[in-house]
Amino acid sequence: YGHLTSGGTLANDEGLWLARAVKLYPLAVADACAALDIALDPLRDAEDDLALLAWSPAQVLSLAETVATHSRAGELLPAIAERRVESVGLARFAAAFPVVNELAVLAPGTAHYSWAKAMKLLGLGSAQLIEVPSVSARMDAGALEEVLDRRRRARQPVLAVIGVYGTTEFGTLDPLDEIAALRAKGNHFWFHVDAAWGGYVPTLFREPSGALRPREAVASEFRYFPSERVHRATRGLAQADSITIDPHKLGFVPFGAGASLVRDKRVLRFVDQRASYVFGEGHAEFDHPGRFALEGSKPGAAAAACYVNHRVLPLDAQNFGRLIARSISACERLYDRLRELAERVAPKVRLSIPFEPDCSLVCVCFNRAGNTSLAAANAFTRSIADAMRVRPEQPVQLRTFFGSSTVVELAHLGGNERARLSRELGFELEQADDRGLFLLRHTLMNPWLLSRSATQDTWVDEYCHFLEGMLSAPATA
Amino acid sequence: YGHLTSGGTLANDEGLWLARAVKLYPLAVADACAALDIALDPLRDAEDDLALLAWSPAQVLSLAETVATHSRAGELLPAIAERRVESVGLARFAAAFPVVNELAVLAPGTAHYSWAKAMKLLGLGSAQLIEVPSVSARMDAGALEEVLDRRRRARQPVLAVIGVYGTTEFGTLDPLDEIAALRAKGNHFWFHVDAAWGGYVPTLFREPSGALRPREAVASEFRYFPSERVHRATRGLAQADSITIDPHKLGFVPFGAGASLVRDKRVLRFVDQRASYVFGEGHAEFDHPGRFALEGSKPGAAAAACYVNHRVLPLDAQNFGRLIARSISACERLYDRLRELAERVAPKVRLSIPFEPDCSLVCVCFNRAGNTSLAAANAFTRSIADAMRVRPEQPVQLRTFFGSSTVVELAHLGGNERARLSRELGFELEQADDRGLFLLRHTLMNPWLLSRSATQDTWVDEYCHFLEGMLSAPATA
Repeated sequence: YGHLTSGGTLANDEGLWLARAVKLYPLAVADACAALDIALDPLRDAEDDLALLAWSPAQVLSLAETVATHSRAGELLPAIAERRVESVGLARFAAAFPVVNELAVLAPGTAHYSWAKAMKLLGLGSAQLIEVPSVSARMDAGALEEVLDRRRRARQPVLAVIGVYGTTEFGTLDPLDEIAALRAKGNHFWFHVDAAWGGYVPTLFREPSGALRPREAVASEFRYFPSERVHRATRGLAQADSITIDPHKLGFVPFGAGASLVRDKRVLRFVDQRASYVFGEGHAEFDHPGRFALEGSKPGAAAAACYVNHRVLPLDAQNFGRLIARSISACERLYDRLRELAERVAPKVRLSIPFEPDCSLVCVCFNRAGNTSLAAANAFTRSIADAMRVRPEQPVQLRTFFGSSTVVELAHLGGNERARLSRELGFELEQADDRGLFLLRHTLMNPWLLSRSATQDTWVDEYCHFLEGMLSAPATA
Repeated sequence: YGHLTSGGTLANDEGLWLARAVKLYPLAVADACAALDIALDPLRDAEDDLALLAWSPAQVLSLAETVATHSRAGELLPAIAERRVESVGLARFAAAFPVVNELAVLAPGTAHYSWAKAMKLLGLGSAQLIEVPSVSARMDAGALEEVLDRRRRARQPVLAVIGVYGTTEFGTLDPLDEIAALRAKGNHFWFHVDAAWGGYVPTLFREPSGALRPREAVASEFRYFPSERVHRATRGLAQADSITIDPHKLGFVPFGAGASLVRDKRVLRFVDQRASYVFGEGHAEFDHPGRFALEGSKPGAAAAACYVNHRVLPLDAQNFGRLIARSISACERLYDRLRELAERVAPKVRLSIPFEPDCSLVCVCFNRAGNTSLAAANAFTRSIADAMRVRPEQPVQLRTFFGSSTVVELAHLGGNERARLSRELGFELEQADDRGLFLLRHTLMNPWLLSRSATQDTWVDEYCHFLEGMLSAPATA
């Protein structure tokens, strides 16, 4: 079940909002039962509050079912409602259940900055967003397991784990299959996947029947894609409790279209909100998405755009997936051309691709031979980015290409990665005079980047010529 | 200072998010100062945590200035940051400052349902949203004063008071001037005005110079508008700390355009959030609204629509205000026609206008003479609403008019109001067989409702003929 939001940030907020509502519900039930002296079967084996916080969404849903059909539901339901965190707030809820003070959300350092904002917004606190170490901009599942073990031993509950399917900055995918596998009986976290950026990539892996295409079948039309890792991450998507997807990114619809998806629509009942003048009678329970959304009235234009888009190009490999395939082919071509370029400019300029692309996003940075200052290397790459920047005071026609950029914090690079980048850029990133490495960031999502007239270079090649010209210009400083 | 949001709900969320960030800040400062053994002048007179929570935004801003320029700012700033509610979350914050457990937000019962949702979202708890009694769907400032006094005596802090400038359901305005006047030294709440619905009405009160037009000048072109109450409420808008306005409502721009405004843009620093890849250098502090917004990337279309709209029709009485004026004139005509209709249909049907309109929204309900059941009266009014409802299975051309409806809860009606409505409808609303009164709701915002060809009735008159036909039809049940 899903509905549209204004963008991925709100869909992420909704994921966390649902996780909090569902995961904290059993505590309110247990407390209400104690107050009313009701013994509920499902609660019989729960040792303590910590154990209740480790229940899976399926267990919580089953508990809610037990409550709704209980002979004393008439007393029990209001007693639960008035004890829920939604009603009393986090301050009083934690006073009643002190283990809630320790509630944390685990996410990789590459997670979108909206997660820290969501933690603040929901009153959970940004300090309770625990960073899980990454390797090459992908969450390290081994490190996640260690964090989970450590927290379990310390009796610190985990509200949710955030996996990223396509980081906004590097297009890299977390190992969703490995993350999902870490949920164990008696230690179950809410699994939210932030696929805001990459959420349409799976169309390429999808048969019209809905089945997952084998890796080999997908691989036949590409040079590198998809790696075993990418295929497994895609398979892991199916195990998420909630997912964020942005139709306004790789979905090619105009801005203002995010989407919030849940595995089991019954979890929405935990955040149901009604208003007499909007939600008239005569609607089936899940017909009015506004009851379960953070926003109020929303533009029909976004819904219409998604509807038309998905009808014209159904979300499988034979239709929408072809758009994604062409983007990935363009990315592979750029990746190859950048490596050739690296060899050609090698005597004078060093070029590095910090992360091997997972789908259709590739970053690159440069350094003049002989320079050993990170700040100076960044200034050099930035001068190229500046030549591709829109300037309000200049006609856009003066620009051959427009580019975006990002910065990878050195603290987010692992040791091996730092060593490789140091080697490629020609100086030690260890003793750096800047906090991060400035990168040109290429999101290839125009399906015509490789198709131009027969007598002309493709746009990808043209872009590499442009870069080569920039790199060969004499230093001005 | 303002920025766009996807809609009023999010702008309301942002108002509460800012209120929480600003109002709780002094507690973190006091605690950090105690830990570092720093004596700050502004804190010298603060008796306790409760007193700090009652500071005005101006006092908090001045405190932040003192902190930033302190000789030990280098230690103090991080010590404050790690103690703020945004960092530690509401659970731990309230454990450190127990008075936070009592933090409440006061709003009239007519406030939009998004406020309860916002309280849940932010972890403040919907039970801490205290309803202030209303009279005729306008907040009762005397009752608010009593609530404030009672809470002060009970040592229960007030985070914010929500005033509504144009309720979504009835178009009524709260007495913003009287609410603002209740802020006193040593007992200062954050004053948020939810003007999502009515935010463009003030254009009619605005000289091109920006000055407020006297009531008499505005009144000269209307029959009833503006009441003294409406003029004073409009003047009171200027005293809000934050305001929600929906350009996609009376601003006549397409859906997906809300707006969040603050009196002093420096308060935004309390919710500042950065990301390396989006907020490059070279921007002035307030040039990147994304740093201070709940959402991430947003559609430029909404901003462009507002920009063009406000350039073509500047926000004063001579330009945009004329659109509002025509809507209000249409509403006055409908109000008069409905009262004439009431007299004409009187022998058979009773008609009541529950709330005198404040601007361009009027509601009405009906009852067949002799009926004394609220449920039956509602069914009668609902049958008329049904004749104006879009049905997916029928061509829309079969409908002469399209209508919206709402329900006013009996619990939200005062004693006098209930007595008047009982008299007008012809039965006692006291012993009612339904929870609320079903109403046809008319938002008049088409500037051509009164202008049709010379030989035809205006649309307003035509609509009243239509209603009369419906009311005169024989009862089918």
